Amino acid sequence: MPRSFHVKTSARTDMVDITAQIQAAISESGKSDGVCTVFIPHTTAGIVINEGADPDVCNDILAKLNEMVPPDAGYQHTEGNADSHIKTALVGTTASLIVENGRLVLGTWQKIFFCEFDGPRSRQVYIKI
Amino acid sequence: MPRSFHVKTSARTDMVDITAQIQAAISESGKSDGVCTVFIPHTTAGIVINEGADPDVCNDILAKLNEMVPPDAGYQHTEGNADSHIKTALVGTTASLIVENGRLVLGTWQKIFFCEFDGPRSRQVYIKI
Amino acid sequence: MPRSFHVKTSARTDMVDITAQIQAAISESGKSDGVCTVFIPHTTAGIVINEGADPDVCNDILAKLNEMVPPDAGYQHTEGNADSHIKTALVGTTASLIVENGRLVLGTWQKIFFCEFDGPRSRQVYIKI
Repeated sequence: MPRSFHVKTSARTDMVDITAQIQAAISESGKSDGVCTVFIPHTTAGIVINEGADPDVCNDILAKLNEMVPPDAGYQHTEGNADSHIKTALVGTTASLIVENGRLVLGTWQKIFFCEFDGPRSRQVYIKI
Repeated sequence: MPRSFHVKTSARTDMVDITAQIQAAISESGKSDGVCTVFIPHTTAGIVINEGADPDVCNDILAKLNEMVPPDAGYQHTEGNADSHIKTALVGTTASLIVENGRLVLGTWQKIFFCEFDGPRSRQVYIKI
Repeated sequence: MPRSFHVKTSARTDMVDITAQIQAAISESGKSDGVCTVFIPHTTAGIVINEGADPDVCNDILAKLNEMVPPDAGYQHTEGNADSHIKTALVGTTASLIVENGRLVLGTWQKIFFCEFDGPRSRQVYIKI
């Protein structure tokens, strides 16, 4: 199995900063140079890279996704999480990150967020370096 | 040229499960460990990883995309597929998948879908392992 | 640091074709076969692969994003670019491209676009081959 870690989410829709855990997995791997593939093995959770300084940015992203894809809107899938699947399709479940000198290469304001769309739950993140 | 295979779509918007073809390409390559890059070489078709058990999940994804980006809505591009280009921009055309012991690493419910937005057509998928 | 180049954008929302710069970076690297990871180190700019022949396709993509995520709509983030962050979350900031014989493998109509959502500005693109 690939490297992995758990994420605990705390609301139906939630964004959790996982930058430190990804950096820790890179450091543990001992690799200094390459690409880190992050993969979310769920169908109602995704990944977004965006601003981490002001939590209102994540609040706005989740609010807009809820407005565009509301929870109850006559979907065919009847498990109550059709919107969660659609939101996941929009943001995606995989990201490729550049690693140099053992460090993630990110912009000044960038953090990596696990996006929960059907929580709260305990989730997993897979990583390959 | 990279490894590739064809996909036949059967409606203007369609999602076709291509998990088995991607796994077959990985098996043929003889590689057991790494990252599989999937690339859709079209401008009106994309890729989504989502639930494969209930086909209504794909129906809901396509219906919501059609509602957000309807086929005729006064677009500037006059070939009748402006919406198809926009939908492709939203879902994306590339994905990075983790391979371990010769097998794709996916979550329990995940399948990989070719997303047709201007079909029906014969399409291609490129793969690099 | 990874290979990088600058992009100058000329409007608040803008799509700039960066295919030639990415190809140039691949040629300079001397590598002929593999995957090229493109990473946008910004939180209000993303990447889209789509049609380059008719500029109206990009106009339609930007117009639809502005319609779905208008600039002023009561967001919590008060820097005037909340919509820019949301648009970035929708299109994404990373792409994995296949390289064969020293050339990007793209479909006939595909070009790679830097997507500005809070310009005009001078921006950066990171590349790892």
